[in-house]
Amino acid sequence: MGNTFGHMFRLTTWGESHGDAVGVVVDGCPPGLPLSIDDIQKDLDRRRPGQSDISTQRRESDKAEILSGVFDGLTLGTPILIGVWNEDARGKDYEHMRTVFRPSHADYTYKAKYGIRNWKGGGRASARETIGRVAAGAIAKKVLAREFGLEIVGYVKQVWKIEADVDPDTVSAEDIESNIVRCPDPDVAVHMIERIKEARKAGDSLGGVVEAVARNVPAGLGEPVFDKLEADLAKGMLSIPACKGVEVGSGFRGITLTGSEHNDPFYNDGGRIRTRTNRSGGIQGGISNGENIVIRAAFKPPATIMQPQDTVDEDGNPTVIQGRGRHDPCVLPRAVPIVEAMMALVLADHALRQRGQTGAV
Amino acid sequence: MGNTFGHMFRLTTWGESHGDAVGVVVDGCPPGLPLSIDDIQKDLDRRRPGQSDISTQRRESDKAEILSGVFDGLTLGTPILIGVWNEDARGKDYEHMRTVFRPSHADYTYKAKYGIRNWKGGGRASARETIGRVAAGAIAKKVLAREFGLEIVGYVKQVWKIEADVDPDTVSAEDIESNIVRCPDPDVAVHMIERIKEARKAGDSLGGVVEAVARNVPAGLGEPVFDKLEADLAKGMLSIPACKGVEVGSGFRGITLTGSEHNDPFYNDGGRIRTRTNRSGGIQGGISNGENIVIRAAFKPPATIMQPQDTVDEDGNPTVIQGRGRHDPCVLPRAVPIVEAMMALVLADHALRQRGQTGAV
Amino acid sequence: MGNTFGHMFRLTTWGESHGDAVGVVVDGCPPGLPLSIDDIQKDLDRRRPGQSDISTQRRESDKAEILSGVFDGLTLGTPILIGVWNEDARGKDYEHMRTVFRPSHADYTYKAKYGIRNWKGGGRASARETIGRVAAGAIAKKVLAREFGLEIVGYVKQVWKIEADVDPDTVSAEDIESNIVRCPDPDVAVHMIERIKEARKAGDSLGGVVEAVARNVPAGLGEPVFDKLEADLAKGMLSIPACKGVEVGSGFRGITLTGSEHNDPFYNDGGRIRTRTNRSGGIQGGISNGENIVIRAAFKPPATIMQPQDTVDEDGNPTVIQGRGRHDPCVLPRAVPIVEAMMALVLADHALRQRGQTGAV
Amino acid sequence: MGNTFGHMFRLTTWGESHGDAVGVVVDGCPPGLPLSIDDIQKDLDRRRPGQSDISTQRRESDKAEILSGVFDGLTLGTPILIGVWNEDARGKDYEHMRTVFRPSHADYTYKAKYGIRNWKGGGRASARETIGRVAAGAIAKKVLAREFGLEIVGYVKQVWKIEADVDPDTVSAEDIESNIVRCPDPDVAVHMIERIKEARKAGDSLGGVVEAVARNVPAGLGEPVFDKLEADLAKGMLSIPACKGVEVGSGFRGITLTGSEHNDPFYNDGGRIRTRTNRSGGIQGGISNGENIVIRAAFKPPATIMQPQDTVDEDGNPTVIQGRGRHDPCVLPRAVPIVEAMMALVLADHALRQRGQTGAV
Repeated sequence: MGNTFGHMFRLTTWGESHGDAVGVVVDGCPPGLPLSIDDIQKDLDRRRPGQSDISTQRRESDKAEILSGVFDGLTLGTPILIGVWNEDARGKDYEHMRTVFRPSHADYTYKAKYGIRNWKGGGRASARETIGRVAAGAIAKKVLAREFGLEIVGYVKQVWKIEADVDPDTVSAEDIESNIVRCPDPDVAVHMIERIKEARKAGDSLGGVVEAVARNVPAGLGEPVFDKLEADLAKGMLSIPACKGVEVGSGFRGITLTGSEHNDPFYNDGGRIRTRTNRSGGIQGGISNGENIVIRAAFKPPATIMQPQDTVDEDGNPTVIQGRGRHDPCVLPRAVPIVEAMMALVLADHALRQRGQTGAV
Repeated sequence: MGNTFGHMFRLTTWGESHGDAVGVVVDGCPPGLPLSIDDIQKDLDRRRPGQSDISTQRRESDKAEILSGVFDGLTLGTPILIGVWNEDARGKDYEHMRTVFRPSHADYTYKAKYGIRNWKGGGRASARETIGRVAAGAIAKKVLAREFGLEIVGYVKQVWKIEADVDPDTVSAEDIESNIVRCPDPDVAVHMIERIKEARKAGDSLGGVVEAVARNVPAGLGEPVFDKLEADLAKGMLSIPACKGVEVGSGFRGITLTGSEHNDPFYNDGGRIRTRTNRSGGIQGGISNGENIVIRAAFKPPATIMQPQDTVDEDGNPTVIQGRGRHDPCVLPRAVPIVEAMMALVLADHALRQRGQTGAV
Repeated sequence: MGNTFGHMFRLTTWGESHGDAVGVVVDGCPPGLPLSIDDIQKDLDRRRPGQSDISTQRRESDKAEILSGVFDGLTLGTPILIGVWNEDARGKDYEHMRTVFRPSHADYTYKAKYGIRNWKGGGRASARETIGRVAAGAIAKKVLAREFGLEIVGYVKQVWKIEADVDPDTVSAEDIESNIVRCPDPDVAVHMIERIKEARKAGDSLGGVVEAVARNVPAGLGEPVFDKLEADLAKGMLSIPACKGVEVGSGFRGITLTGSEHNDPFYNDGGRIRTRTNRSGGIQGGISNGENIVIRAAFKPPATIMQPQDTVDEDGNPTVIQGRGRHDPCVLPRAVPIVEAMMALVLADHALRQRGQTGAV
Repeated sequence: MGNTFGHMFRLTTWGESHGDAVGVVVDGCPPGLPLSIDDIQKDLDRRRPGQSDISTQRRESDKAEILSGVFDGLTLGTPILIGVWNEDARGKDYEHMRTVFRPSHADYTYKAKYGIRNWKGGGRASARETIGRVAAGAIAKKVLAREFGLEIVGYVKQVWKIEADVDPDTVSAEDIESNIVRCPDPDVAVHMIERIKEARKAGDSLGGVVEAVARNVPAGLGEPVFDKLEADLAKGMLSIPACKGVEVGSGFRGITLTGSEHNDPFYNDGGRIRTRTNRSGGIQGGISNGENIVIRAAFKPPATIMQPQDTVDEDGNPTVIQGRGRHDPCVLPRAVPIVEAMMALVLADHALRQRGQTGAV
């Protein structure tokens, strides 16, 4: 259970990392949307392993196929099935940990929950599962751009203790893609890359923060009270592997301000009601107010490291596990398209919900 | 839309703050559970206004009634309707802001979304809506305690810049309720209370952090991949008014650690597999691992302050708004039972889902 | 579980027949709809007991109150809570069957399912639960009329073996309400009424068929493949107490025709594509085609009769049960507004879904 | 939207009849269930075209593949993706009706709903979509048999005006599969087959009734009030292409009985409470009572016939359409596994829901 996300625009992902394939079914995509495999592949290529020398060297081309829902280049309004065949499924790499629980992985909890687990490479808990999200997110982005004029960009805001200075209102996709760490602050990016290489050498790993912004958002998206826009965004973020925290607008930093310092005054900007500051992060009372929506997701350092670690096996016997082969010292650059995807999926869903209720957005 | 939460144990809240009543329907509560109004009133009394001199002085007894779903003191398995009649509904207090958008409130966004709003006291965006959550949460707590042996406590962890030192593994409900700010660190509590009184005098407001812990949690709760336990907890938290961020386990602080510092080693604790540290916050791969679940929710300072603020009216004319009468300088102590409720609702829902799938938890 | 119906326009009913109250929460009603208690009471009065001398003489005024979601006579887009206080809750009438399972009632199955049951008057299995449906249906009818121009009427088509001749395309609400059995075929209505009175005298009961038609339906409503319009209509009908069958268009009679006899030829009716016949009942491939939607629901004879019946008690001991007091020899006339309500709820839900997907209906 | 069915055991089907593939994702299957492709193929072979000389001669081997969710022959509790590649996708056969609306097909309604349609072979409205249902149903049957001891069989009860005499309590799968029309009444089966051959020669088509029975059903399945067992069964049936009616137990025939004739008296059968008759069809108040569940689904004659028919094209011009090539004169024998599948899916879903609520079934 729990493999479906969304209400009007909804996706269901499927597939284990070392099974035959992984993918997604998207249901509720509006009909008549031009959609090609290139739209999807572009984002998948930003997520795939091996794209730079700071990411894992696992080799996967991650070539997607659309098997349904598109006809003569247009969406039909029917379910869109997108699949990616697994290539580099070296089950053997995992043979030595068949019965061992890797620390801070999901090996133990899957076993506790299901009584059975696919011990080859993490199964559903693998980041390969996010291929389906990124594919669906690419479609959501097209819907948002085409039907609602909305744009989303994400970037690496922080790696370990190194934080970038980025203006979410003006940052461009080009700035973000200009370096392999996807941090649009070029000076800080250099340091991040160095630190990641250092971690790789040490067989260690690093976490950080991805920030994403939605721009040109219509006011009125979000369904009080439980499906508030920030509530669904938060769920989307914490459903991504390794994400342990999320904040919207001023977030955790806003709590050190007083109300008089934190409130966003309204003003009339040539007929459009706007706020002078945006500590609300574009959302008030769970509903978009037309300002940019800014969200930050915290990712813990990846659990896979190349250092020996104490653990136990399935029978509870103490043992030491030693990572072998390839590891990803910092998933942040590859997490950027995943964060964008989840943001796009939430916004597309809410845009369709709002349109259904009121006839217009 | 969006007024329902949960899959197997689900609630729907209803009611505007200045309408006739507010309340909740709980669907999916297991049958045969002993339930009295006292079980519910106890938590409502922790949430209601006017309970201490650091909370709002709005007078509401918030006396709840159970109108369905309970028979001879036992739940029937049918929907439980709980209602609270609004008493202190002074619509007149709001007359002067009938057409004015209060900064950082939901006045503007409700108008933008629905084209209409109840301008008396915030309507659905008012914290009165959370009465239904707290009532439902009290039921969820009973289900968790009785059927799964699980316990939840929450407390104020931080007010403004003042942070308490609390051990989530040992803190007791008595410690928490021993002072009016619901902070179990008594020395820090004194400072928090002083700071809140200061803010009240200044007509200003303060935010902070509520931390909550679930103890004696069975391993195996949480539904990968979208309904991960932390994803649903995050949604629950950010659906609470004024919540702008959430973190689980090490959260935002965990990102400054490396993987080798952050991973939680497994060990065999007399036959039970446990982790030596709990940076995962009791959840791995979206599934509980049997350790305590620790979550922190950040609340911005309340938007209602007694100072003059620049804003616009519905026609976009600039104006100055001045709060009148009563305000709540810090909602944190009253937010504690709400955070506990959302945590209980998520865990009860997932416990029933897991039981359905596997026949046992 | 299972007390909620609908996706975009959704209702949750609550309340036991001999509890304090029964009612409904409606979520997803479009904002800005004029709504008064009279809109709702009108249909409740068609459903309530005691309205004629062929229905049960249980006395219930069934006066509804709206407790939330409406402000200054307009819907807010927030949940609408409607409640009706139970008046004639003579628990004592049921005392003698506290531990006895009434044949073809839900006493035994509720006990088997929940381990507990409200033995006073059927609890949730009572037709009183449908008050919430009728109230919500009245709102759905207003939405359909106002936003989509659609109209729904239902009537008694058959009582026992007596079947009326009615043209669904032209029958009017006035014709239907012109007699107490709500059958617009006046000659047949006389026979139906006689037969019902005869059954009442015999302490027996009669079933029959309610037919309903939706007119001026926009083409395009219905979500293949599982939420086909006829699938949701069928679910709606069989969720009504005592309904044991449903058919759309030609239904069970259509199976004796061949394809060449059954197919509905298309033609161009002054620019609008229509079908010459309507054996499809206005739905093709699960989607409305613009023709009138015609549905028939079969109701078994009510289980409550005044004759002695063999049964067992909760311990399995054989016993004889004898109905006392009041019974309803034929629920059909009172079922008409319920059938209309379920039809309206399904169509309103699908109209909003379609509008969300495509921006227009 | 609308391509998902079920709450705890849920499936999402995908694929157009003349796209690359069709299939299903099953979410919520309990872990640890032995599952091989043979379990699924067996039922797919009963559904596939070309299996006898009374079904369509379209050639499809319908060989299924499991791409996820199964590991070492056991289900993982993760989504199960099953796909079938389309082989006999002769788009050219449909070229002549690219812009023509076939009578009583879904061509016109898909165009009206989505503004676009896959004109090759019906797209999602094709019976090929049911491959995913049958595959998922095969899994549901295994869950029901293994975890709840429940068995389901379906058969052809009526073709055109020819009705069989079958005892649902004793009919065996062997009896059903003993002839190509899947009617366990051998004498009647001969007549049915003759009549179908006659229809084929005439280029015409025939409808009928499939009856299905669930045996050894635990009491207590079904969720009042909207997700009553018969309500979900009805939805399942009417979601099948060409199904226009459904009845449970006595159904439409029951309405000619009086209450005293129709009620099912309870008795004690060696400690188990049972009913002497089963007019309720195994369901009372929406909940299974432990008796066999009997359901009948009416299928209209297939819309595809080989005779010339009046219709219009997309511009509204009158035209005559003439079927070419292959048609299926009676889908009933192939509909049997689909009806069984929908019944199994509903029951599996409700069994898991009940287990979640009460901890046992």
